[in-house]
Amino acid sequence: MASWSNLSKATFLRLATDRAPIMKRVLVGRRITAAEAFDIRFPTSEHLDGSDAVHTDPDYSAAYVILQTDAGDGVEGHGFCFTLGRGNEIEVAALEALIPLVVGLDLAEIVADSRSFSRLLTQDSQMRWLGPEKGVVHMAAAAVTTAVWDLASKVAGKPLWKYLADLAPEQLAAMVDYQYLSDVLTEDEAVEMLRRAESGKGARERLLLEHGYPAYATSPGWLGYSDSKLVRLCREAVDDGFTLIKLKVGGSIEDDQRRLRLAREAVGPDVLIAVDANQKWDVGEAIEWMGQLASHSPYWIEEPTSPDDILGHAAIRRAVAPIKVATGEAVQNRVVFKQLLQAGAIDIMQIDATRVAGVNENIANLLLAAKFGVPVVPHAGGVGLCELVQHMAMLDFVAISTEMEGRSIEFVDHLHEHFVDPVVVTDGCYVAPSRPGFGSQIRRASLDEFRYPTGPAWRGTTAR
Amino acid sequence: MASWSNLSKATFLRLATDRAPIMKRVLVGRRITAAEAFDIRFPTSEHLDGSDAVHTDPDYSAAYVILQTDAGDGVEGHGFCFTLGRGNEIEVAALEALIPLVVGLDLAEIVADSRSFSRLLTQDSQMRWLGPEKGVVHMAAAAVTTAVWDLASKVAGKPLWKYLADLAPEQLAAMVDYQYLSDVLTEDEAVEMLRRAESGKGARERLLLEHGYPAYATSPGWLGYSDSKLVRLCREAVDDGFTLIKLKVGGSIEDDQRRLRLAREAVGPDVLIAVDANQKWDVGEAIEWMGQLASHSPYWIEEPTSPDDILGHAAIRRAVAPIKVATGEAVQNRVVFKQLLQAGAIDIMQIDATRVAGVNENIANLLLAAKFGVPVVPHAGGVGLCELVQHMAMLDFVAISTEMEGRSIEFVDHLHEHFVDPVVVTDGCYVAPSRPGFGSQIRRASLDEFRYPTGPAWRGTTAR
Repeated sequence: MASWSNLSKATFLRLATDRAPIMKRVLVGRRITAAEAFDIRFPTSEHLDGSDAVHTDPDYSAAYVILQTDAGDGVEGHGFCFTLGRGNEIEVAALEALIPLVVGLDLAEIVADSRSFSRLLTQDSQMRWLGPEKGVVHMAAAAVTTAVWDLASKVAGKPLWKYLADLAPEQLAAMVDYQYLSDVLTEDEAVEMLRRAESGKGARERLLLEHGYPAYATSPGWLGYSDSKLVRLCREAVDDGFTLIKLKVGGSIEDDQRRLRLAREAVGPDVLIAVDANQKWDVGEAIEWMGQLASHSPYWIEEPTSPDDILGHAAIRRAVAPIKVATGEAVQNRVVFKQLLQAGAIDIMQIDATRVAGVNENIANLLLAAKFGVPVVPHAGGVGLCELVQHMAMLDFVAISTEMEGRSIEFVDHLHEHFVDPVVVTDGCYVAPSRPGFGSQIRRASLDEFRYPTGPAWRGTTAR
Repeated sequence: MASWSNLSKATFLRLATDRAPIMKRVLVGRRITAAEAFDIRFPTSEHLDGSDAVHTDPDYSAAYVILQTDAGDGVEGHGFCFTLGRGNEIEVAALEALIPLVVGLDLAEIVADSRSFSRLLTQDSQMRWLGPEKGVVHMAAAAVTTAVWDLASKVAGKPLWKYLADLAPEQLAAMVDYQYLSDVLTEDEAVEMLRRAESGKGARERLLLEHGYPAYATSPGWLGYSDSKLVRLCREAVDDGFTLIKLKVGGSIEDDQRRLRLAREAVGPDVLIAVDANQKWDVGEAIEWMGQLASHSPYWIEEPTSPDDILGHAAIRRAVAPIKVATGEAVQNRVVFKQLLQAGAIDIMQIDATRVAGVNENIANLLLAAKFGVPVVPHAGGVGLCELVQHMAMLDFVAISTEMEGRSIEFVDHLHEHFVDPVVVTDGCYVAPSRPGFGSQIRRASLDEFRYPTGPAWRGTTAR
């Protein structure tokens, strides 16, 4: 049986050096020589973009990290985790605590044993007490692994989804930390699943490149928007080719009923409308509230209650069927996703790019969902989450679940202009990224403008 | 049904001002005028005190906060959360993010509506994204509420356990945030439970004052200790009156079997021996390993797997009975405790003083355990956790569960000398604290000596 132990940097180096020669054939050795953390905040609360029943005034923010190497070619790894503003400095402090673990490592060594690299970040024998594997430190690990995979896929000359989809089943399966999963998923089983998914891979990749991956639209439905803005944005979403939109609910039942009626009138009978309570309710309240909204035939109810309440989601799902239950953007790690699946608590699994420890843990999540036959419909929005998570969904289609039916990626049309390689969504679909990297790089001018609290965007304002 | 909303500081002030006159009769108005956060670390890894299968080299640390008021009498509120060293600076950053929410509040207003005060700390509309209610920010909330209750009970002239036990059932029940609990516990039900517990309260308090509260001993069993040290400490524990000791397990099965045999020989047949794996195992591995240790009749297996794995604990409990299953020191909040109880996953619930958001959330945890009839055996040790959590266990006996049978408080004999009001354990029992306050105050000389990285204890050392 697996024996998991914590890794010191020294142990990781010893292990990775043994394994590195395999990867050195594909990645030139380049050592990470420096890493800098940035506190980046966008004043989105000014217009109530992103407002919901629980998060009433977010300032979309990123605890951001740039990795430099000794290769001399100027290629950098960019990564971040997403926050809502206040407290972003705590994430930056966590990033600064992780940076010493990363600086000095060779990229080829990391890539050769990225499972151990992940454990280096999440299982530090002292820092793991601050989670374990949840909250601030886990999200900081996401920022670092994002930067590492951005760097690796840039060096490899491929967009990340393609870089990962091209790995052998054994290589992809070896990226996952199976600790606490082996009662439902072992590495051998993952390899088997991935081998089965090899069949038809080329055809799926061509389909993806030709048609893209379906998106759904959340931009119309923020709780802080007026009825007229809601109706206008609903119509625009339909015009833009979306077949599923989402409204925030949970403020007041009268408002929810009126807004659902207006949205239905605006989008017509054929477009699906999902609703999202952002953890607002207790279990009984969720069941009662959704009972009152059932006549509007919502497609799913998202985050009806605490993201920690596995048994609560299961009870809600039993009570509100055939309305689907969805959650995930605040699910802390693979252990909770495992249980949501074991308990039959969700119809739809919503992975987030920077809530869990990043790419490696999300491959675990995709494998778990595939094993249980539950569709993954990633959470996105915020700042840069669309840019990142599209790679995970596309990897899922090409190389893991092999399915696109009943799946889509959330799309919110905010803040993409700050990215070097922004998402492209046309006719209601994400276009598969073609540029090398993970899409995680924010333009230098935006980093300078929105750096908190010293950037020009924040000068003269008080902290929010 | 309850409608929960986030609180701004302004809203809290408006609400609390309405409710304050009730409390102003017992607490003179005193405004919190300043708060300072400290990074305090003890170099405990030098002697492997506290070493286990997962935390191999802890430097017991505290992210510490002192609240000052305008009362002019020098009475301060002291609070902290416990960490293992690296990353303590992240907790300090979180404390510094919470401090602006607290400074300016009147103590009487906080005490009058401490549920809303708790939500002010845990439900900030931007910072809650970093949890919600888990990890770094939640533990920082524990430090702040600890300082507030230390201050309030000092001002009231009572040790905290007595201060809380003397509250009316309605007042104690009003301290709890029932959000996400109402499917198993409502405020009305809590009031009913606490009213029933009024009967015999005086007699239980006298019993507590006369006999103390049972302790169990973990000091003998750290994984880094030699066999001879283990045997010596086991014998000392029995001589000191302990009837339950605990050994760390999970390093190697041969070591565990030898250490259990040595410990049993040292303590004789009548002393219970619990074992603690500190989250080391997967579900199947835990069941297999405990099968191999079953002949040693361990009393409980503590933290057999991930603290997030509710269903995993339930499966392990079914498989290893009659060995009891215990967990809690890393259980992030009341929602997970609720489910551990709902799922029949634990025989013993181990609350921790600074993992959840402090006193208020632990009253929720005590009520949940009492409702399910599961004994609470608090986690302690670290730095100051014994000093704090004894108040919760004593409150539980006097005013909540009314039971002491099958219960005890963990005792580890480390670092108590740094506290102004250290625990007193004699004849295997905690003596009920008699000095006003929460016992959370570290001596000024120790704060100066162990302040990281500038204190004399750390001068000339490199960061660990």
